[in-house]
Amino acid sequence: MRGRFITLEGSEGSGKSTNLNYIHQRLQQAGIEVVLTREPGGTPLGEAIRTLLLDHRQQAMASDTELLLMFAARAQHLNELILPALAAGKWVLCDRFTDATYAYQGAGRGIDKERIAQLEQWVQGALRPDLTLFLDLPVAQGLARAGERAELDRFEREELAFFERVRQGYLSQATAQPQRYRVVDAAPSLPQVQAQLDRILDDYLASGIGVA
Amino acid sequence: MRGRFITLEGSEGSGKSTNLNYIHQRLQQAGIEVVLTREPGGTPLGEAIRTLLLDHRQQAMASDTELLLMFAARAQHLNELILPALAAGKWVLCDRFTDATYAYQGAGRGIDKERIAQLEQWVQGALRPDLTLFLDLPVAQGLARAGERAELDRFEREELAFFERVRQGYLSQATAQPQRYRVVDAAPSLPQVQAQLDRILDDYLASGIGVA
Repeated sequence: MRGRFITLEGSEGSGKSTNLNYIHQRLQQAGIEVVLTREPGGTPLGEAIRTLLLDHRQQAMASDTELLLMFAARAQHLNELILPALAAGKWVLCDRFTDATYAYQGAGRGIDKERIAQLEQWVQGALRPDLTLFLDLPVAQGLARAGERAELDRFEREELAFFERVRQGYLSQATAQPQRYRVVDAAPSLPQVQAQLDRILDDYLASGIGVA
Repeated sequence: MRGRFITLEGSEGSGKSTNLNYIHQRLQQAGIEVVLTREPGGTPLGEAIRTLLLDHRQQAMASDTELLLMFAARAQHLNELILPALAAGKWVLCDRFTDATYAYQGAGRGIDKERIAQLEQWVQGALRPDLTLFLDLPVAQGLARAGERAELDRFEREELAFFERVRQGYLSQATAQPQRYRVVDAAPSLPQVQAQLDRILDDYLASGIGVA
């Protein structure tokens, strides 16, 4: 039986890394074999493309080029890791996927969503995540949390308005695709956030979808 | 006035490099400002992608990944170099372009041409070369010539049947798009090949297309 494809998306400072590991453990405790991976990257070639994207970001990279590179990494990730794992009955838990492209490049930077959709279709065909968890947080709160970390990366340095567009992008995707999206309130304390994750995962597992 | 976009394609051992320089000189002698460039590459980022493609070729690169990387380099090449030059009224002479993708990846390796056409449309919109010169040579003759060189590259080591498919791919494109394609017989001596190029370029310049 084909495994399930679960993706985690999150605002800046929403605790994505911590909660990714938490979800991973919860699924393993339920007896599910889970492959943990991340976008972009997840394969040696994908990591090389990721490096290329980061190295050339300060230069004038055309937005078309950036999108094609992101989807090139994604195509390799799918062919080399995600699709074989799903076919073998494993579940795949992925730190960010195409929803991040819609949110950051689409809503955030204003790249035409129809052009993103064309590449999504070209690369993924009918494949979409079975379940997407979005850790939602007001932008100012998230940036304050992220600011506690040693160094801000390029995205974190970008302006508040950008992150507000990204957040609204995610929320509108969640509204448009309620069957697979679950919005998690990441504002309260970690135990309270994880209690929400528990409920969502329990419901998902209890629904019997994809459970052998 | 927008410049003209000329591409040169050629079978293995067809004298593409030599004739590229010859065409470049002939256009310059006609008083045309020409930008000489090559695919894939032509920009620093494009060269980095080219390196990535060559480095990872021996590994299991998905054909989708390879196509997306090629079109990523092309998108950057177009946005950074080709389109600005054409807009500034310069002519662009490019060593290989999308026709090579159709010939090598499509006809040669059997990748669905419709999928190539979708990426071509996504990246290029309506842009196609104004004139494409294809240096045609029987495969055995071309490989014998190429064999005289110091070292065979990966493509040159591939089998005869592959190159025959590539050649037929180019020829069928030339038949399908006679308005922009000119097939040059690269079998005879260099002066005879260049006499053919002279005639084609003289006709093209005399037609007044794109000449200020």
